[in-house]
Amino acid sequence: MTELLPVAVLGARGRMGAEAVRAVDAAADLELVAALGSSDPLDTLVSAGARVVVDLTVPEATADNVAYAVEHGMHAVVGTTGWTAERLERLEALLAGSAGTGVLIAPNFALGSVLATAFAATAARYFESVEIIELHHPDKADAPSGTAVRTAQLVARARAAADVPAGPDATRDQLDGARGARVDGVPVHSVRLRGLTAHQEVLLGSPGEQLTIRHDSFDRASFMPGVLLGIRSVAQHPGLTVGLDGYLDLQTGGTGR
Amino acid sequence: MTELLPVAVLGARGRMGAEAVRAVDAAADLELVAALGSSDPLDTLVSAGARVVVDLTVPEATADNVAYAVEHGMHAVVGTTGWTAERLERLEALLAGSAGTGVLIAPNFALGSVLATAFAATAARYFESVEIIELHHPDKADAPSGTAVRTAQLVARARAAADVPAGPDATRDQLDGARGARVDGVPVHSVRLRGLTAHQEVLLGSPGEQLTIRHDSFDRASFMPGVLLGIRSVAQHPGLTVGLDGYLDLQTGGTGR
Amino acid sequence: MTELLPVAVLGARGRMGAEAVRAVDAAADLELVAALGSSDPLDTLVSAGARVVVDLTVPEATADNVAYAVEHGMHAVVGTTGWTAERLERLEALLAGSAGTGVLIAPNFALGSVLATAFAATAARYFESVEIIELHHPDKADAPSGTAVRTAQLVARARAAADVPAGPDATRDQLDGARGARVDGVPVHSVRLRGLTAHQEVLLGSPGEQLTIRHDSFDRASFMPGVLLGIRSVAQHPGLTVGLDGYLDLQTGGTGR
Amino acid sequence: MTELLPVAVLGARGRMGAEAVRAVDAAADLELVAALGSSDPLDTLVSAGARVVVDLTVPEATADNVAYAVEHGMHAVVGTTGWTAERLERLEALLAGSAGTGVLIAPNFALGSVLATAFAATAARYFESVEIIELHHPDKADAPSGTAVRTAQLVARARAAADVPAGPDATRDQLDGARGARVDGVPVHSVRLRGLTAHQEVLLGSPGEQLTIRHDSFDRASFMPGVLLGIRSVAQHPGLTVGLDGYLDLQTGGTGR
Repeated sequence: MTELLPVAVLGARGRMGAEAVRAVDAAADLELVAALGSSDPLDTLVSAGARVVVDLTVPEATADNVAYAVEHGMHAVVGTTGWTAERLERLEALLAGSAGTGVLIAPNFALGSVLATAFAATAARYFESVEIIELHHPDKADAPSGTAVRTAQLVARARAAADVPAGPDATRDQLDGARGARVDGVPVHSVRLRGLTAHQEVLLGSPGEQLTIRHDSFDRASFMPGVLLGIRSVAQHPGLTVGLDGYLDLQTGGTGR
Repeated sequence: MTELLPVAVLGARGRMGAEAVRAVDAAADLELVAALGSSDPLDTLVSAGARVVVDLTVPEATADNVAYAVEHGMHAVVGTTGWTAERLERLEALLAGSAGTGVLIAPNFALGSVLATAFAATAARYFESVEIIELHHPDKADAPSGTAVRTAQLVARARAAADVPAGPDATRDQLDGARGARVDGVPVHSVRLRGLTAHQEVLLGSPGEQLTIRHDSFDRASFMPGVLLGIRSVAQHPGLTVGLDGYLDLQTGGTGR
Repeated sequence: MTELLPVAVLGARGRMGAEAVRAVDAAADLELVAALGSSDPLDTLVSAGARVVVDLTVPEATADNVAYAVEHGMHAVVGTTGWTAERLERLEALLAGSAGTGVLIAPNFALGSVLATAFAATAARYFESVEIIELHHPDKADAPSGTAVRTAQLVARARAAADVPAGPDATRDQLDGARGARVDGVPVHSVRLRGLTAHQEVLLGSPGEQLTIRHDSFDRASFMPGVLLGIRSVAQHPGLTVGLDGYLDLQTGGTGR
Repeated sequence: MTELLPVAVLGARGRMGAEAVRAVDAAADLELVAALGSSDPLDTLVSAGARVVVDLTVPEATADNVAYAVEHGMHAVVGTTGWTAERLERLEALLAGSAGTGVLIAPNFALGSVLATAFAATAARYFESVEIIELHHPDKADAPSGTAVRTAQLVARARAAADVPAGPDATRDQLDGARGARVDGVPVHSVRLRGLTAHQEVLLGSPGEQLTIRHDSFDRASFMPGVLLGIRSVAQHPGLTVGLDGYLDLQTGGTGR
């Protein structure tokens, strides 16, 4: 008989947290040992015997929650935002004193989105032109989306590292805004359309060919496979990992033969 | 034996003209009776017995060419730009005196593009949100494309006529240009990518659904079916028609039973 | 003060019916006067003063429900399936004796889907090649989808009426199934993918160009605008109409000038 | 002053060969020292001082050409097909005796296509469902395309290695061919449409999300960046490499921070 991995969820009454509780409950290899709300004491994590703590709380609480987990030798999988450079440094110092403990901080748990961004960054150096189109529901307050900004930054960094010049653009005569926003030199276009959820296309072009990497997020359910992957893998990644892609095998076995 | 329709091409040494010469030559029901360059005399049209004159010349020459054709009772199919409101008025006056003669002035002969624009205008009133993405090769000087501007204008007009409010947009915080240009209130995004030719997507969204109408133009060859349709149909459309859609059957037979 | 239109919903406890109840309730120009389940007596329609009856019940009940409505001078908007040719004939006979009463029977209330099918049928005669790709969640039992079959039939009919030959296809050497199913000669491909709901692409190709008409249905909410359009328009369409497209203005105002 | 790399092209009168001649000629860091047709003697390669030989000939000639190059210490970049397992073995034996000499045999030089296939294979293990749609011009004789078959095989291999079960599919009732062909269990759909060149989409789906990797090949020009990359990199890859992806950096720099 295989032993089940004991998991605790913090922020269990929030929307993401409630989804995570359901997902852990439904997973045959995991055991939900605690599901805490904001007023529940953290001591419960110890008494419940949690090995992995999933933090889906709020920026104000996440740093203390994760510190508590690390100090008690529990791994942590974190989807909460608000991790400044300073907070990350303090966490790394803490982890240095707790050999074998792993923390994953992932701004995005949608496997498809993480892969799409990684692929875009990989491909960026091999094409003359790159542009990004992100499409969201019209109730979104910011444009471009955080994911699009992050993707553009990684694309720009990869092109700079490979000495690829800026994409060609002969536009002389344009209506204000037509060519989109520039993020580190990469054009980003934001569409807001009723009916949509969260979608992104990276378009890469060279003479005679185009590569398009598109991700569609239809539903919050898309985050759960990534959360489960984090829970199952965090013990094998001691120390701090930022970004779920750190847990993914991005190197194909080779397509040659 | 069916009689062949005698066709003349003006501007036969230009790129579009040369394609038209080839297309007319290859059509089993048409006979190419003249292929004139800019220095050839228009009298040849009469001596050659042309019934339809295809004008693919330059803005400076087109009005005179068409007037000559109409005065000699020949139909004209015109792809040249430069037709101001004043020129169109003068042409209509001329046509009033030449019963049965037809002239088609078409800024765009790509059937797919004409249909895409017509469909977008038809659908626009039935959706909460509409945005346009046009994608072209990076050597293009203007953004948005003329076709995208025209499509946006027709979409805006159709929505205004049906009292549809502007699409919802909660954006409060944006990078300059992210939400594209506005053409009569319709957001238009221009992508410039090496490898592309001329492409356009109209995205329409309502709660729970999206309709996308996309046209890809890969090659100048795409104009020829429209030119041939114009040549074959112009005699059945006396007077002036602006826009190839005037010759298309845009009313389906009904999908009911 | 405008008078509200009194509407009754039959099948109000079903999934579609419950959505319709919410949609009618939320519409400022409509008044929900009755919401009946399968065991409620139809007399309530009369006593409640309904002017339009929405039938979202089951094939066994719909014909009797609609007959009752027509006999009592109420208009009906019907989303239930099961309308055989014989039933339709009987309904038409009944309507002949009830001048001014309208019935709409719509197999599909998603405006985008209805428009997509109508556009595909309109465009079909102008292209050399047409193929259909439909994409659904993997729990669907039939392939191709009913909408794809219907679209293919209308495409085939439109091409036959315009004497367009079958699309070119030089395939000599194929893996079984690679070229899809044939519906009246039109290739149809069915994709089944976790994460999807209901989607369809019609691809039309000619030398140098492609036209793509895509519809995405993300959610049952997409049916409600069509149901509301039916309720609001049925009084202006006496007699029997099959297909929501009979209520749509599919003729653009013309794109010429 | 940087020294130019001396390059010879075999099969210089073929379509691909002629493109390669132009591309090498246009590259500032390369010098075209020989452009041979089928009747030209291979000795010219030595007298011309070629360091890299590009073979774009025919299956009957390629093995001897490459052997000649390797025996004379020249690197080879090969786009010709016909490399059976036996031929590859003999070539490896030859290379074992020629330390430092590199040979690249690439069935596909379109960078975007190679990347698309590699990305699909990488992503395949992280999704519940995978299907492939390939779209080509209607003069193609085989379906599915070789690239689609290869992609499906790599996808299937990656899923098997990660113990991912077959994609879910509840289809019970289908028109023959609707669900496509099966290549190692992966559904593959082949569209043939006038106007298209060579295109492929890999669709990956999981609860709530979809990842789409699409490659469009519009023109033979798309092969040249890959050929040039091969020429410039072959000296750094001694021994035999099959597949251009062996020369690509498929590992991103990490997206974490």
